[in-house]
Amino acid sequence: MGDEVKVFGHWRSPFGRSVEAVLKMKGVPYEYFEEDLSIKSPLLLKYNPIYKRVPVLVHNEKPIGESLVILQYIDETWKDNPILPQDPYEKAMCLFWAKFIHEKCMHALWNACWGLEDKEKAIEESLDHLKTLENELKDKRFFGGDKIGFVDIVANFIGFWLRALQEVVGLELLTQEKFPNLFKWSDEFVNCDIIKENLPPRDKLTGYYQAHLASSSASK
Amino acid sequence: MGDEVKVFGHWRSPFGRSVEAVLKMKGVPYEYFEEDLSIKSPLLLKYNPIYKRVPVLVHNEKPIGESLVILQYIDETWKDNPILPQDPYEKAMCLFWAKFIHEKCMHALWNACWGLEDKEKAIEESLDHLKTLENELKDKRFFGGDKIGFVDIVANFIGFWLRALQEVVGLELLTQEKFPNLFKWSDEFVNCDIIKENLPPRDKLTGYYQAHLASSSASK
Repeated sequence: MGDEVKVFGHWRSPFGRSVEAVLKMKGVPYEYFEEDLSIKSPLLLKYNPIYKRVPVLVHNEKPIGESLVILQYIDETWKDNPILPQDPYEKAMCLFWAKFIHEKCMHALWNACWGLEDKEKAIEESLDHLKTLENELKDKRFFGGDKIGFVDIVANFIGFWLRALQEVVGLELLTQEKFPNLFKWSDEFVNCDIIKENLPPRDKLTGYYQAHLASSSASK
Repeated sequence: MGDEVKVFGHWRSPFGRSVEAVLKMKGVPYEYFEEDLSIKSPLLLKYNPIYKRVPVLVHNEKPIGESLVILQYIDETWKDNPILPQDPYEKAMCLFWAKFIHEKCMHALWNACWGLEDKEKAIEESLDHLKTLENELKDKRFFGGDKIGFVDIVANFIGFWLRALQEVVGLELLTQEKFPNLFKWSDEFVNCDIIKENLPPRDKLTGYYQAHLASSSASK
């Protein structure tokens, strides 16, 4: 097809990893560019001058930023293994939950773990949001039903990053006792071949979190 | 078709008005429910238990929340007068700008006008964001080209509400001198028949803003 696909990401960014996961699910070859988040590269600034952040997908020299927009674009451009339903209502529900996960859950979970703002309130909110997802998932294997869909991909932070992060900072947010459905889902999710091969190494991630925790404790 | 369409909104909510505008553009009859934002009605809580806010679209008893999700659903369900392009890249660009307007612009503009957080910084950010939109619009009549599209609808706050609000709080953000393209666009936008008939009365809106300003000044 002569498609040239580039992904600008960072090894520990769940947003970039979600873009890569979907390209892999659809069998779309791409070239990966690791960005140094402390120094914005000229290419990143060229391709995403508005947000200046990863991930960016560049398809035949046309750039797209913002992972939820990118994921929808990929699904509409390469039709194999669709991650969004065709039915407009079911699709709207996926977009709704994706927005909820990105805007509400991840914000609360990040604050709960790093205590940037009101930590106790953030913990409470995080547990509320996880409960909401627990009820939405019910006894389904994945949010997408029998197979991984848009919401699963978007929830990758909860499926993998959160369990590593909560261990480092000493919180019990996503546990088997509190959220059995979601906990089981996270095990299923990270053990899918395409997801598994596309995750950052757990030791490297916890090492980064430990170092970050030590440096933020030292500066308090 | 037997379609039953309900919209839960609030008279001064640009998000609810955007949903109504698109239904009107597509000739979809709907029943409107005005919500009292201080008392969440049982119906609102039933239909949007996650966010508990307007707008909500209920189509044949199936509820959808979050205006960007609702607008996309409407466009996919009722095909007349499409507001999103068919081409996946052009569509992705619309979704990107819509997100930018909702998340970055409106947040900064609201803070600039009401001074909730760092007012000076918010003013600076607002001007930056308006400049970004000015450059994106260029000499096009609408963001959608010759006719109103998704981005125009989502930018309705900038087209109408902002000019009323900045007048009340005594700021000059969107002016003809600073942003001639965007200023001209806002005139064109509010004078389109379907948009015009769907806006809140300007006097009522400025009256509300004046009262809100007086009460927040008194409580300082």
